[in-house]
Amino acid sequence: MDAARRLFGDRGFHQTSMAELANGAQVSVGLIYRLFKGKEDIIEAIVASDVDENIARTTLLRERLDAGEFSVEKAFEQLLLQVLEDKDEALSFDILAEGTRNATVGKTIEDMFMRYRRFLRHFACAANPDLSGEALDGAEDVILSCIFGLGHRTLSRPNLDADATARRGAQMIVAALRAAR
Amino acid sequence: MDAARRLFGDRGFHQTSMAELANGAQVSVGLIYRLFKGKEDIIEAIVASDVDENIARTTLLRERLDAGEFSVEKAFEQLLLQVLEDKDEALSFDILAEGTRNATVGKTIEDMFMRYRRFLRHFACAANPDLSGEALDGAEDVILSCIFGLGHRTLSRPNLDADATARRGAQMIVAALRAAR
Repeated sequence: MDAARRLFGDRGFHQTSMAELANGAQVSVGLIYRLFKGKEDIIEAIVASDVDENIARTTLLRERLDAGEFSVEKAFEQLLLQVLEDKDEALSFDILAEGTRNATVGKTIEDMFMRYRRFLRHFACAANPDLSGEALDGAEDVILSCIFGLGHRTLSRPNLDADATARRGAQMIVAALRAAR
Repeated sequence: MDAARRLFGDRGFHQTSMAELANGAQVSVGLIYRLFKGKEDIIEAIVASDVDENIARTTLLRERLDAGEFSVEKAFEQLLLQVLEDKDEALSFDILAEGTRNATVGKTIEDMFMRYRRFLRHFACAANPDLSGEALDGAEDVILSCIFGLGHRTLSRPNLDADATARRGAQMIVAALRAAR
């Protein structure tokens, strides 16, 4: 999987053959096929492992928010730092492209978003307990898109670094949530 | 270019050969090579034509905002509707992936973002004339990411349709800009 991340990221998912992958991982093609049905299965495994790590970190943030250790603004700041740090954008765009064309990969990505939405909803209600119905649904959509965009912003030539963006982004998100109605 | 959009979008940029492209466009491979140096040049032309259309529409929005025909919230709502309508996400992810690996394509995408940033900066200052320095730079980064994310949200299984999202998103963006400091 490390070799797949590296090769898919550097060269692209469709531009990497199973033979190159076996060579990169220093194993036989046969061994890869014993573990994975094909390249798509490897993509699924990469998404699943990223999701598990992300959900574990976000669960910790929610616990600290619920325990009152964090303000909601601090929780969003930490959430943004997580996505701003993750720099594997080439691989991410390849996986997203595949997800729009391949129903199985698409389903894995959709499930990831659904799990992430539950946390965002919780954080949004912590920022503004009056949010409900369409206002809450819309706020969840908008904040999710904002966080997704911040995680894929390198080609937009950002003005500010990750720390300053996380701080300012969290402040703006909390203000937007408090104003939503 | 219509054939390229369709084939690159349906099957992927790297998965489409020049021969398939010629076949799809009902022209000879030789003719394509007289017009474009290769597939990358076609991608550049697609991005350039999308940018021109987008910039033309956004210029119109700015004029109406500056003339007082639109509130700034209405201007953002129209801006969001533009990106929410554009549904060619598979092609977009392919182009972005290519942009992270291919410096020429990357430069074209970066230039597009730079042109778009100027409008966002103008709209942000219309929402909050006190914004300047790092607060304005950060607001521009965050709003740009939010709009980018909303334009690539299909796999996130949105709660609300385009109209409701544009309305609620614009309201949240203006609130976030007014609170930025």
